[in-house]
This record gives sequence, C-alpha cells and structure tokens, in this order.
Amino acid sequence: MNGFRFELRHVDAGCAARRGVFHTPHGPVDMPAFMPVGTRAAVKGLEIDQLRATGAQMVLANTYHLALRPGEDVVAAAGGLHGFMGWDGPLLTDSGGFQLFSLAQMTQVDDRHAVFRSHIDGRRLELSPERAVAIQESLGSDVAMVLDHVVALPNTPEVVRDAAERTLRWARRCRDAATRSDQALFGIVQGGLDAALRVECAERLAELDLPGYAIGGLSVGETHEEMVEVLAATTPAMPADRPRYLMGVGRPEDLLAAIARGVDLFDCVMPTRNGRNAMAFTSEGPLRLRNLRFERDQRPLDDDCPCAACRRSRSYLRHLFMAGEMLGPILLSIHNLTFYQRLLADARQAIVEDRFEAFSAERRRRWERPRTP
Amino acid sequence: MNGFRFELRHVDAGCAARRGVFHTPHGPVDMPAFMPVGTRAAVKGLEIDQLRATGAQMVLANTYHLALRPGEDVVAAAGGLHGFMGWDGPLLTDSGGFQLFSLAQMTQVDDRHAVFRSHIDGRRLELSPERAVAIQESLGSDVAMVLDHVVALPNTPEVVRDAAERTLRWARRCRDAATRSDQALFGIVQGGLDAALRVECAERLAELDLPGYAIGGLSVGETHEEMVEVLAATTPAMPADRPRYLMGVGRPEDLLAAIARGVDLFDCVMPTRNGRNAMAFTSEGPLRLRNLRFERDQRPLDDDCPCAACRRSRSYLRHLFMAGEMLGPILLSIHNLTFYQRLLADARQAIVEDRFEAFSAERRRRWERPRTP
Repeated sequence: MNGFRFELRHVDAGCAARRGVFHTPHGPVDMPAFMPVGTRAAVKGLEIDQLRATGAQMVLANTYHLALRPGEDVVAAAGGLHGFMGWDGPLLTDSGGFQLFSLAQMTQVDDRHAVFRSHIDGRRLELSPERAVAIQESLGSDVAMVLDHVVALPNTPEVVRDAAERTLRWARRCRDAATRSDQALFGIVQGGLDAALRVECAERLAELDLPGYAIGGLSVGETHEEMVEVLAATTPAMPADRPRYLMGVGRPEDLLAAIARGVDLFDCVMPTRNGRNAMAFTSEGPLRLRNLRFERDQRPLDDDCPCAACRRSRSYLRHLFMAGEMLGPILLSIHNLTFYQRLLADARQAIVEDRFEAFSAERRRRWERPRTP
Repeated sequence: MNGFRFELRHVDAGCAARRGVFHTPHGPVDMPAFMPVGTRAAVKGLEIDQLRATGAQMVLANTYHLALRPGEDVVAAAGGLHGFMGWDGPLLTDSGGFQLFSLAQMTQVDDRHAVFRSHIDGRRLELSPERAVAIQESLGSDVAMVLDHVVALPNTPEVVRDAAERTLRWARRCRDAATRSDQALFGIVQGGLDAALRVECAERLAELDLPGYAIGGLSVGETHEEMVEVLAATTPAMPADRPRYLMGVGRPEDLLAAIARGVDLFDCVMPTRNGRNAMAFTSEGPLRLRNLRFERDQRPLDDDCPCAACRRSRSYLRHLFMAGEMLGPILLSIHNLTFYQRLLADARQAIVEDRFEAFSAERRRRWERPRTP
C-alpha cells in the first residue's frame, strides 16, 4: 500500500467517537467523514467546483453502474475515474454487492459469483469477487470494496449466516486478486442483526489485515435502534487502527449515533435525493419547500450556511420547485450536502473537545423541536 | 430615465455592425450582446456564478411566465427580480406578447387587450398594455418591453398590418402607463416580412422617443434569407442613437448576419435548449454528443474554451447524456452559453478593427466545413 495511512488523532473521553485522518494518494480525508454519492461518475446536478465547495473531501462511485455504463474500459481510457469525472480528491468505489441486492434483476448467488440481469437492458451478466476487483482497478479509485453478499432484513438465521460466510470467503478472494499498490481494499462485515455473528465476522475479517473495514447490510429495513445495537456490538471487534466505514447510512441522527459508536466514514444518497425532492435539511430540522408557507419567506434555508442556495430566499427556492426548474434540485442538493459536511466538521470539533455526546444530544433536540408555523 | 445611456463607440467601416455600450442602473452591457434566457427567473440549470462565468452581462426573463408563476407580487415581495433570482446585473423582461402567440391557449386579441387561457392550468387571464407595464414594474427589470401583437408567418397582408398597427397603438399606451424612472421601455417593430411596413412601423415608433427599439415577430417560421432581408430594410429606419434588439434570434449564423445589419442585442433559448439535448456548438460546427464516435474521445468540446464543460472530455459528456445524468445538460448549457458569449466578444473586437465581414465569413466557413469523422 503506497500513500495510505490512518492517523487516529483523538478518541472522545465520553464515548467511542474518533477524530482521525485517512491519508490517500489523492489527499487526506478528515474523519468522521461523509462521502457524497456520485453513482455514475457524477454527483447528481453538481459541477466539480460546486461539489468541492460543499466541503466534501472524498466521493463515492458505483462499480455496478459504471461497469454497465459507460463500461470500465471507457473510464480506463480516460486514465481512470479521477480524470474521467474531473475529481482530483480521494475516491471510493463500492463493489456492486449492494446493487446486486437492490437493483439488479433475477440475481442468483453461488460461491463462484453472482449472476444477474442488468436493470438497464436485461442483459445477463456476472460479477465475481475477482471481477469486482478487476473493474475497480480499471476505475482506479483510491479505495475499493470487496464484493459482499447482501440479503434483506429480517431474514432466517441460515440465510444471514450463509451470506456472511460467503462475504468472508469472497473478501479473501478479493484480497488475493488485488494487484494495485495505489488502491486500498476495504473488507465488509455482514451478519444482519445478529450481534454475535457480526462480531465473529469482524474478527475473522480482521485476520486478512486489510487497510480498512466496513459495516454493510444495514439501512435495509431495520429500525434506528436495531442499527445502533448492531453498531455498538460490532465496532469494538473492528481493528481500532483502521478506518471504519458504515455503508449507505444515513439520516443526520443516524450519523451522530454511529459516530458515537466509533464509525469514521459514511455515504448516503439522502442529501441529494431528498434535495431533488424539495426537502432541505436545516439546523432546525427538515423543511419541505413546496409548502405554501414558504411562498413569500425571504429567509435563507439556514442563516449561517455559506452555500449557494442560502444566498437565495426560501421563496425563490420554492418557486423553482413549483415551476419545475432544475435549478431547484441543484441548489437543494448543494445545500443538503453542505449541511452534512458542516455537521461532520462540527462533530470532529466536538470530538477533539471531548464533548461529542452533548453536541449530539443538542443537535438532535434542535432537529426534533416542533417549529412555530 | 435615470442611469440609462447608449454609447455608440464605433461603426464598422465595411458594414453596419456597431460596437456600443448600453449603460443601465445595474451596470454596462457591451454590444453587440447576447442575453441568456432565464424564462422563469432561472437560466435552466445554471447557478448565478456559473451564469456570470459564461461572460453574460444581461439576462432576459419572461413577464408571461412570471406573472403566472410565482406571480409578480411574490417577486415584488423579494424586492424585484434582481433580489429574487440573485442576479445583480442588468435584466430585461419580455412583455408576454410572444408567449400569447406561442404558448397561451385560445388567445383572442382586440384593441383593449389579449384574453387567453394559461398553458399551466387553463385559467382565463387577460393582458393589456397597461397590465404588461405594471407587471414589469413589479418585476423591476432594467429594460421592459412594450406589449406587442405577434402573428404567424406567412400570413395575409391584412392580418400583418392589423397586428403591426395594434402594436404601435399599444406601444403608446405602454409609454403612457410607465412610471418607473429606473426602467427603460423598449418599443417593438412588427410588420411581418413586408419591408415597407417594417420601415413605416420603425419610423412611427421612433416618434415615441423610446430609449431602445426591438424587432419582433421574426424567428417564427421564415427563412434565414427572408429574415436578413427584413433586417436590412428595417434597421436603417431605426434611430442610430438607440440600441436595436432582435428578439428571439437565434443561431450563431443569424447573429452574425444581424450584427452586420446593425443589430446590437439578442436573446435566444437555442444555446440552453440545444445544450439540454446534447448538441454542442463548437468552433468547428455543432457536435451531437450522443454519437458513438465520442465514446472514447478524450478531447474537450473546444480546445481553447475556458468553460467548465471543456475541463472534461467528450467521452465523459457523452456518458452523462447516455446515463441520463442532469450534469450533462448543465455542462452543455454552460458550454453553449460560453460559446455565444465568446462569439459576441470576438465580434465586438472585429468591429472595432473594421474587419467584421471578413470575421463573419471566416466563422461561417468554419462551422459549415464537413469534419473528418
């Protein structure tokens, strides 16, 4: 591994929250960190300058989507994902395991590989651990993920254990297949809501001595409390000297709960997807911009937010959504991503000052407080 | 009129092309100038910073659209269109005359007013010259347009003359209704393809001593040659000491032809609309980005273009369109608007160097040259 190093700077005195820096060949990532999702080599609606201005340091892209379109060879012809999309900071690619579960059609998994039909044109395709690594090496992300087997929750213990065991076997095959020294491969802990199985998976995965570890298979239907229980059990079994990545999570309150349990890295489509649907995260809780009460509201979404959307009024933003102007989704995506990045920056500050739990409680109280109309 | 002044700096020695500056309360506009179209208080997909970066100095918005949604009172509550949309440069509002012809349903025009049904919800509405002025005063644009009566071409001489006469009567009523000293009211010359009628309209309109004059009712189905003939006849009859605005035109070659006939100002949806449909204007003619030949084309759209899209490859831009990513339309809109602004900047330079006709011929040759595949 060249150019990768996880620097654990401080653990909060009152909880497991960690302030770290993950160094990559394309620069450092201050942790805890949130990655905006650039599924198909673009964070929906955002130009690279706008993306950088949100405060994002690391961006996620999806192996499954890029392999289908434009094809990893097209990305490789551009010298990889960095050059292709114009993002010169750290990039992480998901392996496709989650999309096999959530998006692909007629997915059949056996130990060799997953066979599925493309959600775009029904083409029959296969994805093996070796192929997932090869695609990610073509894409040239800084961090690649092992191929994992995701199952729906709740599910039978047999199905959950079978998928978790397969994920462990596949992690080893991914590690053995990886050839790039400038790409870090992260393992993925599966195991559903079974805390003992999660711990077992985390410990067996740690034997592979990977540069980072993720928790997968959450945010698939379980409650917030169930997720927090799993995290509380799992993170202590994950190596303390490697970054811990909670995949696909989540709401601001989920992030705070996970940070308190020692998670360092997140990704989620929520800020951009909700933004496209006129939902703005603010310091006083979410706003639904289509509401008539914003028709003449001259205030910005958040008084102290430095983003481009907050140079406009709620009245203008509402107008854009009511008129179907794409600038509405763009501006709210920018705002929500900025909200997430500012939340994480505040969290990092709270951790180094050993007051993360108080910070977290205060934020959650503010978001939940019913607003006067 | 406070803050308005048309400064005619130079007329090309070889043709009627003019280099001028139109001073407004929100700053100067170098002419000939092209206004991007922000129909509903947004240039589709562009943040204000991106819009400014294209080189645009003046932006157009539409009275008809804004009166319907969000309503001019909502815009006025924000202190007018500048504050509402966040554009602090000069703004021009069209009066709605063209939309009554192109978009509204069941439009019936008599001398009093136009009665029509909203294209959004079928509501029955009316627009009179007085109301068109009142709405534009609420919007607070720098330049307001008189309400004109636009008819389809070709048409009978009677219909064309009737609409042109009504446009003259309405221009006087608009002038008499206007109350804001910080808003310039431009007249509109109608008259179809009848050169004599156009000249008559231009001369009778000039009697109103308005701060600027437009040519309307073109780009509605006539050929390029017909349009140029009308322009060649009309512009000499328009006051030389006022800006001349050709409404809704057009293609790059149309702009060059009109500039040579003494036109100073343009607007058109073409750069943004075509951009949204994957068509890029380039120095070597238009490119259709969905074409397979761009799949691995690592070149930018234009080698010397400074826009955000040209920091990417044609391969990436094509991918965005094939994947349905909204960043594709955004980047191509940025590029096409930048192309138009650079074309106008080059035109201004050519005029002051008395070589506009040669410049224009050379550009048109380049755009028409068949490219090697």
